[in-house]
Amino acid sequence: MASLTRRTSNLELHNHLYPVIMAGGSGTRFWPLSRQLFPKQLLRIMGDETLIQQTMRRVVCASAPNRVMISTNPAQAESIRVQLSEWKDALTGNFVLEPEGRNTAPAIALVALELVRRDPDAIMLVVPADHIVKGQRAFDAAVALAATLAQQDYLVTFGIQPIRPETGYGYIRPNRKVILGRQGTLTGHPVSRFVEKPNATKAAQYLKAGDYYWNSGMFIWRAATILDEIRRHQPALFRGIERIGQLMRAGAARQAIDDAYRTLTPVSIDTGVMEQSKKAAIVPVSFQWSDVGSWGSLDEVASKDKAGNVVVGRVVDLDSRRSIVYGDRRLVATIGLTDMVVVDTPDATLVCPKSRAQDVKQLVDMLKRQNAPEYLEHMTVQRPWGSYTILEEGPGYKVKRVTVKPGGRLSLQMHHQRSEHWVVITGMARVTRDDEVFDLMVGHSTEIPVETRHRLENPGQATLHIIEVQNGPYLGEDDIVRFQDDYGRTKN
Amino acid sequence: MASLTRRTSNLELHNHLYPVIMAGGSGTRFWPLSRQLFPKQLLRIMGDETLIQQTMRRVVCASAPNRVMISTNPAQAESIRVQLSEWKDALTGNFVLEPEGRNTAPAIALVALELVRRDPDAIMLVVPADHIVKGQRAFDAAVALAATLAQQDYLVTFGIQPIRPETGYGYIRPNRKVILGRQGTLTGHPVSRFVEKPNATKAAQYLKAGDYYWNSGMFIWRAATILDEIRRHQPALFRGIERIGQLMRAGAARQAIDDAYRTLTPVSIDTGVMEQSKKAAIVPVSFQWSDVGSWGSLDEVASKDKAGNVVVGRVVDLDSRRSIVYGDRRLVATIGLTDMVVVDTPDATLVCPKSRAQDVKQLVDMLKRQNAPEYLEHMTVQRPWGSYTILEEGPGYKVKRVTVKPGGRLSLQMHHQRSEHWVVITGMARVTRDDEVFDLMVGHSTEIPVETRHRLENPGQATLHIIEVQNGPYLGEDDIVRFQDDYGRTKN
Repeated sequence: MASLTRRTSNLELHNHLYPVIMAGGSGTRFWPLSRQLFPKQLLRIMGDETLIQQTMRRVVCASAPNRVMISTNPAQAESIRVQLSEWKDALTGNFVLEPEGRNTAPAIALVALELVRRDPDAIMLVVPADHIVKGQRAFDAAVALAATLAQQDYLVTFGIQPIRPETGYGYIRPNRKVILGRQGTLTGHPVSRFVEKPNATKAAQYLKAGDYYWNSGMFIWRAATILDEIRRHQPALFRGIERIGQLMRAGAARQAIDDAYRTLTPVSIDTGVMEQSKKAAIVPVSFQWSDVGSWGSLDEVASKDKAGNVVVGRVVDLDSRRSIVYGDRRLVATIGLTDMVVVDTPDATLVCPKSRAQDVKQLVDMLKRQNAPEYLEHMTVQRPWGSYTILEEGPGYKVKRVTVKPGGRLSLQMHHQRSEHWVVITGMARVTRDDEVFDLMVGHSTEIPVETRHRLENPGQATLHIIEVQNGPYLGEDDIVRFQDDYGRTKN
Repeated sequence: MASLTRRTSNLELHNHLYPVIMAGGSGTRFWPLSRQLFPKQLLRIMGDETLIQQTMRRVVCASAPNRVMISTNPAQAESIRVQLSEWKDALTGNFVLEPEGRNTAPAIALVALELVRRDPDAIMLVVPADHIVKGQRAFDAAVALAATLAQQDYLVTFGIQPIRPETGYGYIRPNRKVILGRQGTLTGHPVSRFVEKPNATKAAQYLKAGDYYWNSGMFIWRAATILDEIRRHQPALFRGIERIGQLMRAGAARQAIDDAYRTLTPVSIDTGVMEQSKKAAIVPVSFQWSDVGSWGSLDEVASKDKAGNVVVGRVVDLDSRRSIVYGDRRLVATIGLTDMVVVDTPDATLVCPKSRAQDVKQLVDMLKRQNAPEYLEHMTVQRPWGSYTILEEGPGYKVKRVTVKPGGRLSLQMHHQRSEHWVVITGMARVTRDDEVFDLMVGHSTEIPVETRHRLENPGQATLHIIEVQNGPYLGEDDIVRFQDDYGRTKN
């Protein structure tokens, strides 16, 4: 048991609190709204902000933006930086990139290692980037109580009161006889028992018993404590992480660190550490929570119309009930649906019963095997300077809308196989074409011949939109030679 | 009874046979594939040709292209001419335009009037443009027998053997005791009884009785006979048609003829004439037939996969059964659907159970009331010179792909409020811009400033495709001043 002398005041405690947003998920189960390169956390599933934006806003309340750590991978980092650009400066050095997904234990260990280096008293608040939480005050209260238990070296998990006999989650039973802490109506207890995903009968029993909680995947612990417990229960993983720490301190090459990371045991923090530790504690929480694990789970959190439908976008309906209909810019018309899911995106539409929503994963696997581009990314692709949207592709041509943020500029580049035409539709464009530099206003255009060095830039205060028409025998994104780039993308 | 002296040989008979394609339908029940300005007959619902193309090909077998009459309205005539361009010259003078829809009796009377003028012995083969018939030889045989009965002044209808207790059609019972004619296994009989659309119990009885036939809406009669019968049973309508004939012969103004047409009784040929006539006869036919009256009816005619699904386009499915899934260029993913309809078009998607497919009409009415553009036309709009497709619209801009047929040219025109940029993506463009005329090859572009007279033309042998980017405060199609037009569209 931790000594009380290390206990600090709430204010001091929060000075050592480091929210860690786990943002490495692939989110295939929300296809076609999510894509491999555009996972669920980046989606505006409910409300005006995306899930990761909501998560960021939720955790900075109890901390400060520059203490928020983002655990993700190189493929997603750019999109996340774009979405969290409100906190751009604070987050600059706080991205911890996994070279590849090795489950949660290595990812958490890597962040813990960085945090003990920064602050030996660091307390980590680990939250997935793509969950929905409703009730900021209840969340803050749970964090405050859990943090005091973490101070006492507990590994604290947040327990969610079950609302249905769910077979997709692990369950946790608290030892109610021992109260480790109390704050208002909230109490903290040692964990009496972890239960792996149960079958339907067991799940119904747990729901009825009323003393089992869903494992939310949110945790609080001291960075030093979790490293100790990883050393105890996953010694091989710990040695690997230690070695990575040494490589980092020695300024080793990125490749060496990546290679070391790839040898780590891919184990989850739940089964690899929590379920084996004597320090596991639970705080049953009162806020509303959903991991929005599939389209069907939107029912838990989204607001519904009188007939129980969740409707987003331009939808015209006759007599549908308890259905989820997601539109984008196009019109979606539905008649007489019951318990169905319809999701319409610019390049793909999904229709299935809610009861089959889990099988979207299987469908995405099929697409992947067929090499269908729709599994990978959207028609709109985020870039550090803005984004582009493919409006149409055909033999020998491609039409894009290109959006450049104020001050943004694309790399100085050249294409071997295509010419481009740019027409400005909003804002002002600064164009570099060979040795010329000139500005184009709305309604004006320019031509970029094959093998001509060029650059597009937005020198204005307003967002720049251009229509780009590409012509050529090959129009792949990889026909690009970059001479200079503001975002470090010149290496080929 | 007609005198046998008037009977002619089969060959002579066919020289007097005038197929009349009834092509005025609005086809809202096939939305979103059909639109008010793009009805079902123009759709490629099954096979490589559209329904009206199939209909044309079917009827020219027993006749000649220059004897085929097209009954339609001004809004649809252009699209029909485009689709029937294979027979362009033959059909030139054969379009009979109704100023507005007044049901089938006035439309048929108008064509009959024109035909007796051309050929007093004319026999009309009246066929809807948007039905599906399978079995050309069986069709030809039925036409041959029915035409001999028509020679004898019968009003002959084709009876379809029911395959289900349909409540949406009228039924006809032949008087089997009297055989008016015979050809192979086919027989013709007087009509014993017409039955209006029955309820489900009655429909089941008719199906079981086996001696009731569906009224197919296809007829054969002498033009002179049907006019006689209209005079007898719809005297007011007949007087109206006579007056229109006089106006036409006197070379009256279009407006006067239109005004006269609008006063005609809007009655169907079935209830207004056939059901009251003593000359009604029926030939029960052996060809497969469907009026494809709704998405659900595709089941009757379309080929299905093992699970009973009708699938068109880029569709990825897991476990669906007996469903209709229609895609276009985008990916449609379906899981576990049973008896559902999914139709995906570039600007609208429909999802409904087959059992509700009839209610698409109601949904389109809703869209019409809301003034939603999707009820009216497609993103792709047919024009006499080719077509255009809207790729994207936003504040101040619009992007189109414009397709110009070889030899086609747009009007010499000008816009007050928008500039345009054209980039050639396939073929060669001849551009008129003020006093200049120049050619543009693939990958080249030009700018058309506001208030500049311009024209786009395809002087080549291949189809021309350009991308057009419009900029301006107002981008409506009605901002156009036409100076010259090959298709008579210069009047404003």
